[in-house]
Amino acid sequence: MDTRGDLSPLLSNDEDDEVMISSIGNHSEASCRFLSTPNRRTSDGLFENGDSGIEALVSDTDESVRPKKTADYEALDYDTIENELYYAEETKMSHRQWKCIQIQRWLICVLIGITTGLVAVIINISIIQLTELKMKIVTQAIEKCVKSACLYQPLLIWITINAGLVMIAALLTVFVAPVAAGSGIPQIKCFLNGVKVPNVVRLKTFFTKVVGIIASVSGGLAVGKEGPMIHAGAVLAAGISQGRSITFKLTFPLFEYFRNDREKRDFVCAGAAAGVAAAFGAPVGGVLFSLEEASSFWNQALTWRIFLCSILSSYSLNFFMSLYHHHGGDLAYPGLINFGKFEGTYEGFELPIFFFMGVIGGLLGALFNAINHKITIFRNKYVTIRFLKVVEVIIVSVVSATIAFMMMFLSAQCNPLGQDINVDLQFLCEDGQYNTMASLFFTPPEDSVKSLFHDPLGSFQPLTIIIFVLPYFFVACWTYGLQVPSGLFIPALLIGAAWGRLIGICMNAICPDCLWSQDVAKYALIGAAAQLGGTVRMTISLTVILIEATGNISYSLPLMTVLMIAKWVGDFFNQGIYDKHVHLAKVPILEWEPPPLSINIHAREVMGTPAVTVREVCLVKDICRVLSDPHNCHSGYPVTNEEGKFRGFVLRSQLLILLKHKVFMERSGPDDRLELAVFRDSYPRYFPLSIVNVSEDEQRCHIDIRPYLNPAPYTISERASLPRIFRLFRALGLRHLVVVNDNFEVVGIVTRKDIWKWGHHGKS
Amino acid sequence: MDTRGDLSPLLSNDEDDEVMISSIGNHSEASCRFLSTPNRRTSDGLFENGDSGIEALVSDTDESVRPKKTADYEALDYDTIENELYYAEETKMSHRQWKCIQIQRWLICVLIGITTGLVAVIINISIIQLTELKMKIVTQAIEKCVKSACLYQPLLIWITINAGLVMIAALLTVFVAPVAAGSGIPQIKCFLNGVKVPNVVRLKTFFTKVVGIIASVSGGLAVGKEGPMIHAGAVLAAGISQGRSITFKLTFPLFEYFRNDREKRDFVCAGAAAGVAAAFGAPVGGVLFSLEEASSFWNQALTWRIFLCSILSSYSLNFFMSLYHHHGGDLAYPGLINFGKFEGTYEGFELPIFFFMGVIGGLLGALFNAINHKITIFRNKYVTIRFLKVVEVIIVSVVSATIAFMMMFLSAQCNPLGQDINVDLQFLCEDGQYNTMASLFFTPPEDSVKSLFHDPLGSFQPLTIIIFVLPYFFVACWTYGLQVPSGLFIPALLIGAAWGRLIGICMNAICPDCLWSQDVAKYALIGAAAQLGGTVRMTISLTVILIEATGNISYSLPLMTVLMIAKWVGDFFNQGIYDKHVHLAKVPILEWEPPPLSINIHAREVMGTPAVTVREVCLVKDICRVLSDPHNCHSGYPVTNEEGKFRGFVLRSQLLILLKHKVFMERSGPDDRLELAVFRDSYPRYFPLSIVNVSEDEQRCHIDIRPYLNPAPYTISERASLPRIFRLFRALGLRHLVVVNDNFEVVGIVTRKDIWKWGHHGKS
Repeated sequence: MDTRGDLSPLLSNDEDDEVMISSIGNHSEASCRFLSTPNRRTSDGLFENGDSGIEALVSDTDESVRPKKTADYEALDYDTIENELYYAEETKMSHRQWKCIQIQRWLICVLIGITTGLVAVIINISIIQLTELKMKIVTQAIEKCVKSACLYQPLLIWITINAGLVMIAALLTVFVAPVAAGSGIPQIKCFLNGVKVPNVVRLKTFFTKVVGIIASVSGGLAVGKEGPMIHAGAVLAAGISQGRSITFKLTFPLFEYFRNDREKRDFVCAGAAAGVAAAFGAPVGGVLFSLEEASSFWNQALTWRIFLCSILSSYSLNFFMSLYHHHGGDLAYPGLINFGKFEGTYEGFELPIFFFMGVIGGLLGALFNAINHKITIFRNKYVTIRFLKVVEVIIVSVVSATIAFMMMFLSAQCNPLGQDINVDLQFLCEDGQYNTMASLFFTPPEDSVKSLFHDPLGSFQPLTIIIFVLPYFFVACWTYGLQVPSGLFIPALLIGAAWGRLIGICMNAICPDCLWSQDVAKYALIGAAAQLGGTVRMTISLTVILIEATGNISYSLPLMTVLMIAKWVGDFFNQGIYDKHVHLAKVPILEWEPPPLSINIHAREVMGTPAVTVREVCLVKDICRVLSDPHNCHSGYPVTNEEGKFRGFVLRSQLLILLKHKVFMERSGPDDRLELAVFRDSYPRYFPLSIVNVSEDEQRCHIDIRPYLNPAPYTISERASLPRIFRLFRALGLRHLVVVNDNFEVVGIVTRKDIWKWGHHGKS
Repeated sequence: MDTRGDLSPLLSNDEDDEVMISSIGNHSEASCRFLSTPNRRTSDGLFENGDSGIEALVSDTDESVRPKKTADYEALDYDTIENELYYAEETKMSHRQWKCIQIQRWLICVLIGITTGLVAVIINISIIQLTELKMKIVTQAIEKCVKSACLYQPLLIWITINAGLVMIAALLTVFVAPVAAGSGIPQIKCFLNGVKVPNVVRLKTFFTKVVGIIASVSGGLAVGKEGPMIHAGAVLAAGISQGRSITFKLTFPLFEYFRNDREKRDFVCAGAAAGVAAAFGAPVGGVLFSLEEASSFWNQALTWRIFLCSILSSYSLNFFMSLYHHHGGDLAYPGLINFGKFEGTYEGFELPIFFFMGVIGGLLGALFNAINHKITIFRNKYVTIRFLKVVEVIIVSVVSATIAFMMMFLSAQCNPLGQDINVDLQFLCEDGQYNTMASLFFTPPEDSVKSLFHDPLGSFQPLTIIIFVLPYFFVACWTYGLQVPSGLFIPALLIGAAWGRLIGICMNAICPDCLWSQDVAKYALIGAAAQLGGTVRMTISLTVILIEATGNISYSLPLMTVLMIAKWVGDFFNQGIYDKHVHLAKVPILEWEPPPLSINIHAREVMGTPAVTVREVCLVKDICRVLSDPHNCHSGYPVTNEEGKFRGFVLRSQLLILLKHKVFMERSGPDDRLELAVFRDSYPRYFPLSIVNVSEDEQRCHIDIRPYLNPAPYTISERASLPRIFRLFRALGLRHLVVVNDNFEVVGIVTRKDIWKWGHHGKS
């Protein structure tokens, strides 16, 4: 199996300069000053080089795009970090303060909801405006040339505009925030699962994502804006809830209580939901999405906050879009429904046809994923330097534009201008007519989906549809995974709506006078659902999203069934596309269930051993040695007392902060303790050991770790089975688990990767 | 605070004959034969007296209806019971067998879905037929009497029919399955939370629930059939998945693998979802309901099965109901939509009106809950013997009927017969007219809700509505908690639709010519949602249920917001009605979050101590002593080795089975082990210690517990904080947690009730 994964969407290459610290011959001699590598990353460590200033525009090297290994991903700490300081703070807290924190949680969700809706409005309107502008320029050029046989001119103009726009997206993505590539859904999924994907919730990623998706959609790539909107919502949530931006080095004295992985995760969940709500106008779908796809930590209070967040996001989107559409305040205006309002219903005997379409959707979805898989592997092998990545994007853009242009002239279908089409897409058609194919290419992709759904039976001839869908399928396969922000929902829906409409036309041909076969919209919808379900393999949230986005509930039963069938058929061949990309990038994501038939694997086989431990009261020299040991770069260490008994667990980050603030017993009074605020302050970017300077004298001092360690971490017996360990990890979002023997002595430590390795073995 | 709770819906009184075993002076002398009390129940124990044959028709005593104490509830074991036998079985399992078990899981869900739909069809049709029959008899009598001034005759006939029907329901409930009283939702909630409510998923409960709800709805009580349908679905799920019925003493050699609490819970989840899907025609709502209200153990694979189950339930309901309505096969026939199809939309400026209605809903919901609370406390104090319970039901029935009859004649509103009303409800009206009030009382309650939603503006005069809603509100308050199966959704919707329609009429009066004020249906719908939200305090699942039950998506935003507002306003005053009843019954249910400000409570304060332990290899006499100790009736015991080191955990039920099968070291070969099948076979009704006969000789034998104990149960340090313990319990569905000290010695044991006690202290 190829060891290179699909990194583009999941990796930020500028963080890849992992330089292992030089080997230290004699560990007991190692002192902190020996370590001067600026961007050291640990195998399960804590560092990001966000502070190192090498974020942008470093030269292209093979090194910079080297694929990530599983070991490069860090885990997040979804377990509460308890210690004496925390107990003291919580005990001091009055009921009023506690209420205040609750209210802040709601307030943050309100902010996330409203801003996410606003961002979606900005993206929407920008795309509409840019697309209209582009169309105006190109159609004018065509009009001028259609009689004077200079058709290469409009083609060139079109290609130039598209390539220009797409290049902006590519440059931003490649050089500012590579993690902004792709839809963002796999990244958010990883984040919520407990894996830290570097930079995934940073402001520069947000900026890249928003500008990039506007550029790439307007630039005519076969991408949608929905996935990136979800990612944007998640970043906003993380940013707002933390009250700080690392990119701008700004920290507000707000929401400090929430500066830990656990709280951040909850808000990111809400942000993702708000993103879905804004992208599809589907607030319930948003809540479900964030539960189905992302969260394994269900909690009713949290769900209500997510729900509020989704609702507000919908309201804010609908309100501003209704203003834009000159229906100010009419929040139920049907023009706000993403895929147009569906009327009509279906007959019971059409169900088998729908089910058959589900099978087709599953097959085509699996084919899409398989082709994309091959392309991704090829891309990871050969398109490795940054310049090439940008070039690839431009090539795809040029090819897309050329194909589209050729299709417009190949497909000679002209329809009379109706009231729906008031724009000038005449091309080679007679006066008073428009080119059908052009209506698919010169409008924002949502409008194309709407056309395929709702335009009357004769609007698209079968040949037009076939000419459209075949190349589009392959271009879309090629496009997903490029170094630009790119959503997958709209391409899948377009493909599905196209072949769905084809089937609808067939049905009408079979029974031209039947009432039920007059309505092609339902076939287009079912096709779109089947294709989407076969590609991404979600069910419940997709059902609700489609119901909300079409404003029609009566198709819920067939939609559900079709999505389920498409998933089953697709799963027979390969994974869903998001899972595939996560898998290719070797992210140590934990599945929902323990690996099957793993009951005979026990803790002692799973754990990393021997575990490096530290003493409750410890020589500074020893701590430095442990922290600098290149072979044991865990993110935390079990703490033992003099007799070697297990006393608790301390995080690497905590030790670093203790060292930096020189909390040495010899230098301070017995009651001198660091405040919890100091620890919160350095979250989430902990400094490397190298910036800690400890003198020779200080090396002989002692640190009393007791106030800072977690006195009662979760432990497991060495006899425990893997499923038992798995359940503990999964249910509580743990990062590490101490394995103890019958004498309560530490015998090893299990990390997320240890578990992942075993689950992973079973798979190809 | 009153110590008697609302037991009616949550308790099965025939299980209350808890006779504590006679005090045994010298514990070391105690032998198994000393214990002959047949229905002994442990404080956290395992026994039900289902086998004792005293289920029905025992004489009324105060004892039999004595309220349950928290100590009487047992916990369920949602943690996998691991031991050497289990490891051996799982290790032997081939990938093919594993697949086979997966397929069985799906198959069971298919069966659950289809049968739940069928049961819903039976309930629906029975209610429709009985109601029609009743109406025919009564209207004929009225017709005869209206001119000859013998109106007392039809009233008497009506009262007799109603009281007769309701008495059937009451007798069944009181004497066969008291747990079938009420809606069943609180009971299912408790079950899924991990508390064993006796008899809640038994066949006799199912039978009582189905017959009882048909009788009580047709008998004209202010109840709905939706809650009981959900309960029925859950019982079906438990029955099918276990392949056995205890009531009929039938065991099929099917699905044996699933005979444990963990698997049963998953299927009950699916059954509840199928119930919602069938009750409201809301499959997505069903999935959400079972997640929001019930399950804290989210798992994607499980969710898909629940989803399938819901879909099939909907299909089977729609299919058979479409046949019944002579629209065979037309699954999209709008007559299948529970509350009728909603057309129309709303204007942005109506939102504040809706929000205001949300506030009213919250207030009225809180009032409803408060009154019901008082009535319940009164009822628990004074209506304690069985005979009285039946009498109360009959009184309520007579009062309901009398009030309804009076209202029909008081409200003189007559409407001309339209195409909707083709039945004869003339009463005192002119020929060709019908009595509006009668149309609310002589139709199944769903149809009354539909009338209030959809009948044109003038159908109900404001006075008619006021005369209807005021008494109905109080009768509904009185009715919920009676000893009959009774759903709460329909009464709440009826009340809400009534006052919602009133507001709609007001709006129309304010602006008679406005387009937006012509549609009273939307106000009735929002009112219904607000009232329901204010009473039961669910949000997400209710939103989706209402959307699916009205077939209209465009109200989703206002519905959501109104439900949220109603919940907030209601929560300001008291708990939701289900939570209230759970709370009153002192069920040790665990909330979603640890109790606030509990960080300074530690394991050593929470745990029960000293923990009774048993040895790995143990004298039979000692085991008997431990099992019969009345002061330490836990459901499991930590196991220690010779040196007192903690070695694992063994369940009380396992020890009992070992005793019963006389697995004594002296009597059997070294490899003689009980099969796992033996343990599964006795699930879930373990026998009491009294039926185990151990001779004096055998008392001196040894039992080797090692193959049967769980070698690696979850443990926690005595220093752990309550939130930390809570999270472990909640996330993993634990029943007991061993507390160890730094030497890994057992110092105590934490059970669900220990945790519940602390959370409970904070509340009134």
